[in-house]
Amino acid sequence: MSSSIGTVVKCSVFGESHGEAIGCVLDGLPAGEPIDMEEIYLQMGRRTPGFDRTSTPRKESDTPHILSGMLDGRTTGAPLAVIIKNENVRSKDYGNIMSMPRPGHADYTAHVRYDGYNDVRGGGHFSGRLTAALVFAGAVCRQILRRRGISIGGHVLEIHGVRDLELDPVNVDSKLLEDLASRRFAVIDKAAEEKMRGEIEAARKGQDSVGGIIEAAAVGLPAGIGSPMFDGIENRLAAALFGIPAIKGIEFGAGFGFAKMRGSEANDPFEFTKGGEVVTTSNNNGGILGGITSGMPVILRVVVKPTSSISLPQRTIDLVTGKNAELEVHGRHDPCIVPRALPVVESVMALTLLDILETEARIKG
Amino acid sequence: MSSSIGTVVKCSVFGESHGEAIGCVLDGLPAGEPIDMEEIYLQMGRRTPGFDRTSTPRKESDTPHILSGMLDGRTTGAPLAVIIKNENVRSKDYGNIMSMPRPGHADYTAHVRYDGYNDVRGGGHFSGRLTAALVFAGAVCRQILRRRGISIGGHVLEIHGVRDLELDPVNVDSKLLEDLASRRFAVIDKAAEEKMRGEIEAARKGQDSVGGIIEAAAVGLPAGIGSPMFDGIENRLAAALFGIPAIKGIEFGAGFGFAKMRGSEANDPFEFTKGGEVVTTSNNNGGILGGITSGMPVILRVVVKPTSSISLPQRTIDLVTGKNAELEVHGRHDPCIVPRALPVVESVMALTLLDILETEARIKG
Amino acid sequence: MSSSIGTVVKCSVFGESHGEAIGCVLDGLPAGEPIDMEEIYLQMGRRTPGFDRTSTPRKESDTPHILSGMLDGRTTGAPLAVIIKNENVRSKDYGNIMSMPRPGHADYTAHVRYDGYNDVRGGGHFSGRLTAALVFAGAVCRQILRRRGISIGGHVLEIHGVRDLELDPVNVDSKLLEDLASRRFAVIDKAAEEKMRGEIEAARKGQDSVGGIIEAAAVGLPAGIGSPMFDGIENRLAAALFGIPAIKGIEFGAGFGFAKMRGSEANDPFEFTKGGEVVTTSNNNGGILGGITSGMPVILRVVVKPTSSISLPQRTIDLVTGKNAELEVHGRHDPCIVPRALPVVESVMALTLLDILETEARIKG
Amino acid sequence: MSSSIGTVVKCSVFGESHGEAIGCVLDGLPAGEPIDMEEIYLQMGRRTPGFDRTSTPRKESDTPHILSGMLDGRTTGAPLAVIIKNENVRSKDYGNIMSMPRPGHADYTAHVRYDGYNDVRGGGHFSGRLTAALVFAGAVCRQILRRRGISIGGHVLEIHGVRDLELDPVNVDSKLLEDLASRRFAVIDKAAEEKMRGEIEAARKGQDSVGGIIEAAAVGLPAGIGSPMFDGIENRLAAALFGIPAIKGIEFGAGFGFAKMRGSEANDPFEFTKGGEVVTTSNNNGGILGGITSGMPVILRVVVKPTSSISLPQRTIDLVTGKNAELEVHGRHDPCIVPRALPVVESVMALTLLDILETEARIKG
Repeated sequence: MSSSIGTVVKCSVFGESHGEAIGCVLDGLPAGEPIDMEEIYLQMGRRTPGFDRTSTPRKESDTPHILSGMLDGRTTGAPLAVIIKNENVRSKDYGNIMSMPRPGHADYTAHVRYDGYNDVRGGGHFSGRLTAALVFAGAVCRQILRRRGISIGGHVLEIHGVRDLELDPVNVDSKLLEDLASRRFAVIDKAAEEKMRGEIEAARKGQDSVGGIIEAAAVGLPAGIGSPMFDGIENRLAAALFGIPAIKGIEFGAGFGFAKMRGSEANDPFEFTKGGEVVTTSNNNGGILGGITSGMPVILRVVVKPTSSISLPQRTIDLVTGKNAELEVHGRHDPCIVPRALPVVESVMALTLLDILETEARIKG
Repeated sequence: MSSSIGTVVKCSVFGESHGEAIGCVLDGLPAGEPIDMEEIYLQMGRRTPGFDRTSTPRKESDTPHILSGMLDGRTTGAPLAVIIKNENVRSKDYGNIMSMPRPGHADYTAHVRYDGYNDVRGGGHFSGRLTAALVFAGAVCRQILRRRGISIGGHVLEIHGVRDLELDPVNVDSKLLEDLASRRFAVIDKAAEEKMRGEIEAARKGQDSVGGIIEAAAVGLPAGIGSPMFDGIENRLAAALFGIPAIKGIEFGAGFGFAKMRGSEANDPFEFTKGGEVVTTSNNNGGILGGITSGMPVILRVVVKPTSSISLPQRTIDLVTGKNAELEVHGRHDPCIVPRALPVVESVMALTLLDILETEARIKG
Repeated sequence: MSSSIGTVVKCSVFGESHGEAIGCVLDGLPAGEPIDMEEIYLQMGRRTPGFDRTSTPRKESDTPHILSGMLDGRTTGAPLAVIIKNENVRSKDYGNIMSMPRPGHADYTAHVRYDGYNDVRGGGHFSGRLTAALVFAGAVCRQILRRRGISIGGHVLEIHGVRDLELDPVNVDSKLLEDLASRRFAVIDKAAEEKMRGEIEAARKGQDSVGGIIEAAAVGLPAGIGSPMFDGIENRLAAALFGIPAIKGIEFGAGFGFAKMRGSEANDPFEFTKGGEVVTTSNNNGGILGGITSGMPVILRVVVKPTSSISLPQRTIDLVTGKNAELEVHGRHDPCIVPRALPVVESVMALTLLDILETEARIKG
Repeated sequence: MSSSIGTVVKCSVFGESHGEAIGCVLDGLPAGEPIDMEEIYLQMGRRTPGFDRTSTPRKESDTPHILSGMLDGRTTGAPLAVIIKNENVRSKDYGNIMSMPRPGHADYTAHVRYDGYNDVRGGGHFSGRLTAALVFAGAVCRQILRRRGISIGGHVLEIHGVRDLELDPVNVDSKLLEDLASRRFAVIDKAAEEKMRGEIEAARKGQDSVGGIIEAAAVGLPAGIGSPMFDGIENRLAAALFGIPAIKGIEFGAGFGFAKMRGSEANDPFEFTKGGEVVTTSNNNGGILGGITSGMPVILRVVVKPTSSISLPQRTIDLVTGKNAELEVHGRHDPCIVPRALPVVESVMALTLLDILETEARIKG
């Protein structure tokens, strides 16, 4: 595994779905930053399943327990370690013998990669459960960023073809993002939300699942952050966001829509505001030009594949018998993880952007 | 800047569009690998403009000159440094005073990032010219990978809405990929190619440009390569590919198409072949499950935005006068860089995959 | 802080002396490695103080509690996280207001570095206590290395001028090293040990402390490991070993003794053994030539400065009053930490060498 | 190989002794820094051999040719690439068949590491010749540091037992360091210099060589720089300095002398100066406490082993015949490389300290 990331602000994630605890170590945080635990609980709550029919009934209390790196409510500059106990674990749902790898999961590839020694119970270290640690990390970083004028938030843009309104790439502001970032199933258009819930419910009833798209933004980043060619904003965000299970694509600004554009439409014209600030009148580039922030909102979209765990019978192989087989997975599945993945995406953005800012601190001065 | 990438096989890229030379240092290559210069010339030729109306008439001879790391036609294990002289440079097309930043370019963001000291002539280090060094690096890595049974190739999937046939994600093989990887404007469907050329010509005539999508694949990778959470195949390929100018999105396998799928469609069923090999009967996951190769073809798509350089008048700002302004850029522009970006994408894939393989060498046995 | 190290096998250390727990995350360990907890307890016991008069009477039970990464006694390939609870903490010995920085400690420099927010109680993250996590990590890596034929061990070479016999750089073998690595106050020459104990006791009585030198070796490393210029064996071992508090110098082979030598003495002649193996008849280079292992024992020495904590009155400053002051630190101090630092040195060597071997795995094959 | 180093300011070194050129790429330099080429030539001249009998008569013109990253005399922020042509190469002195590995050299270990494909002519990439690129890099970084109030310099402290005066660790200032850093055979005590020259001449006449110790310092570093546990000043400087061929040990401040000290002697008392500045009245810790700068001069010593190339007959093996053999190496050898290694040591210090400062820029305010 290589579950560590970061240059100055580093995050090392650990844990397995059915182990004793998961957690992470945040190394390189600036010292003296006050940390509001209530906000951390709120963010972690957004990821927690079990609140309605859109997610698995498995209850996860997700209480983070900080072991080091904080004193009197502030960061000390030393590594901040947190553990989150695994509760409500029903290991009998699974065993540690990888017999029939679940389609769409990492079961088979991990089996090969780790010579059969990986913990397969509940997906082990590949479980979406691990994202709780990322949300913790992001909830810490988000607070530090906010004090520097940076807000991050997002919404469920699409579920199984049902689409929300897009964020306004020019005018999206911290107020909207902070509001979205406090919600559990953040959709802008109420009507779309209803239809999305309908799609999820239909999938649940069909013992199936659905995928979707998350759109997220960061506002308040100064122009001039990012180090191309390989430590540009896009490189760094993409490298981190693909660490979230089920993410299979990412696009910035107009993204894949650029393929249908001409340069005259795609190029964002520069303009001085009345206050003398430099802006662009459109923001197809998603706030990033040449890998460097332009000062406009950073806009990205990631696609989340349908939950691989479904109760419908599926064709697979039996590694023990060496024969083709049919698999029925019973247990508690999310018919759609997109809403729960949303705070994870925002969190990984926060972690990555804080790392970039700390690494390039001289520039901001 | 941060124009270096890699863990074991590292690449450090240098140069500016109107400087004396560009190039790169490839550090950490395995020793004793024979390098065929003809293949390098061929690959670099695929990126070179000036061969037809789809690209800029600026001629670049692009002759790589190796300074170190090779002896008697083989790698020595020491860093392989190459320089490519800049010829046919017409610096009078530009000056080094950043007056009017070109929309869509890094001019403004680099100006802020580098306090106005960056070389703006021809885009400086941000120029697409720099990708010649990446193609060199990729052409070296590609040969090493091929001897390990791995082939990489791709095609222009879409230009301004005109779409080629997609690669067959299950059956794409080295023969097709090697063929595509030897062509200058690689499109599978001849009819689509003609229409694409029409779109490019129309853009050229309109002093405009068009964007598109590149689809590429790697076959022959063994199952079990990649180190999630953050050094998985997707993390690593995305981090590297966003180093190519104009790339604004990436997706693996079904990618953004997953948003419209159900799990029962999306999950790729496993199957034993008659020979006892493990395959999946579909390949929506693009050969990657949980960040680890499944042994199926690795399939990805990247979107290339329309060339930012267009001759049409554009609104921008004048940093010298502090006023809004109109910009007309004369000079030699590519109406479409998608075909030229294709070998660059393949090259960055080759560089990244070789690095991953060398870093995880123990796994391969 | 930047308490993480490693390329493939990574270690992220966390905790503070008077916090709830310390620990580390070992990311990138090979999967399927059986881990003997008894050996871990033994190694951690070697570092634990309180067994005799040479160390602080503070009792540390040092029981490692593994949270993840192991199943059925074997590594899973996922990050191995461990916590070690802090017990017997007497925070009233200290407060968190940095008033008078202790000479020789990081109190003042950390105060500046972390803007006064670092946990100063017991030295916080700078405490020698943190080395318990390193010994845990090393005890894991040491077992994996041993199965590959590699043994690591060392001894107290010097304390306050009293010197043990040196290891024979040509003939030191795994038997001796494993024996030394199981002992609590490992000295080869019993007479020297007695004198050393006398020096420590004299320092203790004088409310003072003494420094010394640790000599350690690794045998069984194949020739051809290491990647110069900057990832050679010496670069990597030195970078890691200076992470141990109080280490102020390192030398390999003849080390500083080379300054008094001629080339004809210093150069180690090569020779074929009767079995056709390549050896050197002397080993002034400490098993490393050009940063790469020669197959001979890797020999190094590190100097440990006298424990900074002493009870004698010392001149310092008062950061609160802004005046010069005199400091008397009462509490429990080690008059000599050299014997306790020995397993830490061996552990950091094990961690570093395993990382190098895993990173360069292809070579060994 | 792994000839790249750095976190924000990165250096990738390339070239082989008898190849066409050597050089390096400096990636991540701050933009807008004026670079004085005269100072670069001066520094490179200090390393150039052939000026007197203390070094090899091989002439190296060592003219650096900058390819990118500078414009109008200032850094652009893009990677700065330099090549230094190899001239006066007499390849017939060597062949590329590794028959008899030279004792003390990397010949044998590189042969194993690179499967016999490394360039053995003149030592290939292991040649001291490569340090010319490091001196170039250091000469660039040194200028940037000086504008931030930081000076680096050093002297030959010992050659074959003959010892110069030590630097005053408390009072050494930029004036002395800058003076030493402009000299070719920098020794403080003229009488010691004469004796050293005598030792070198005696070694030369005896077809032998001698080793020695370099002492160097950096002044002007603010307190509070460095990130323990593993990116402290000592970790980083040691990791880089062991990249210089022939360096076999490093110590900071009192270094190995600590082994004979008591804590009451070793601890450096803090004191407020009349101006309210915090200083220590002694500086046994070499300006570094807990891996972080204290604001006092950073002092280090490195040992340089005797030049491995000597003309005396030596015992070795013949890899072709598989038999023990005797080797006589004729050619042009340095009887002592210590004076030439001095500017290299200073340069690597400059490169490393600039990288640390840029990485931790936020701290400096």
